[in-house]
Amino acid sequence: MDEIVSSIGRLNHIAIAVPDLKKSASFWEIALGAKTSNPMPLQEHGVTVVFIESPNSKVELLEPLGKNSPIKKFLEKNPNGGMHHICYEVINLKNASEKLELAGARILGDGKPKIGAHGNPVLFLHPADFAGTLIELEEIRK
Amino acid sequence: MDEIVSSIGRLNHIAIAVPDLKKSASFWEIALGAKTSNPMPLQEHGVTVVFIESPNSKVELLEPLGKNSPIKKFLEKNPNGGMHHICYEVINLKNASEKLELAGARILGDGKPKIGAHGNPVLFLHPADFAGTLIELEEIRK
Repeated sequence: MDEIVSSIGRLNHIAIAVPDLKKSASFWEIALGAKTSNPMPLQEHGVTVVFIESPNSKVELLEPLGKNSPIKKFLEKNPNGGMHHICYEVINLKNASEKLELAGARILGDGKPKIGAHGNPVLFLHPADFAGTLIELEEIRK
Repeated sequence: MDEIVSSIGRLNHIAIAVPDLKKSASFWEIALGAKTSNPMPLQEHGVTVVFIESPNSKVELLEPLGKNSPIKKFLEKNPNGGMHHICYEVINLKNASEKLELAGARILGDGKPKIGAHGNPVLFLHPADFAGTLIELEEIRK
């Protein structure tokens, strides 16, 4: 049971940082026939988001919002944009953290969950531990 | 109907290029409780793959195989690894291509479908058109 509870679940989303949200969303719509949401400014997270829904998961296009946006540095390094992180759902973030710590994986920041863009507790894992991939874990309450 | 046929469908996978497949797969398993497949060498695609299954989608860890691996250059630029591409399913690749061309999106190579790692026809789209993100389209026959 512990094994199940501390394992990753659904792939909730892939986040792509973009320099121009309207331009990108419009091109995904026209060229790929994607269904895109209206832009949603998330002041407290320093990003404006457009969701691109698929039947099984979603892509989140992120544009910096405000001066201290967490994706500002990423876009300075990658001015045309790029894949920023992937997000897995977990049932219990505390159990997942314990498993990560035992394995020697590093949790970013102070190691404590924050409230993420969807209103759920989240953690970010150090990309150097996962082959250069920034991983977000989001606790989904069933 | 045309609209539906030429639209992207399921997010089939996210591919992550890694310098050491066994090390990465083992860490995803131990630290994240991920279910990983055995490594599968795909000679004709120049990669060895480990699948990390989620209930709704999958991550594919890719390690170069052979001298002409298509991910060789990527790993030279990103020696620790990184997110390489995302793959969307489409019902009809010909319809999708027509829509892409009309929108001015560039298809990589000669613009004609190849047989991908799962045995289905695939196309790759120019990352510069999609905010630095390499997109694979895979035709899934229902």
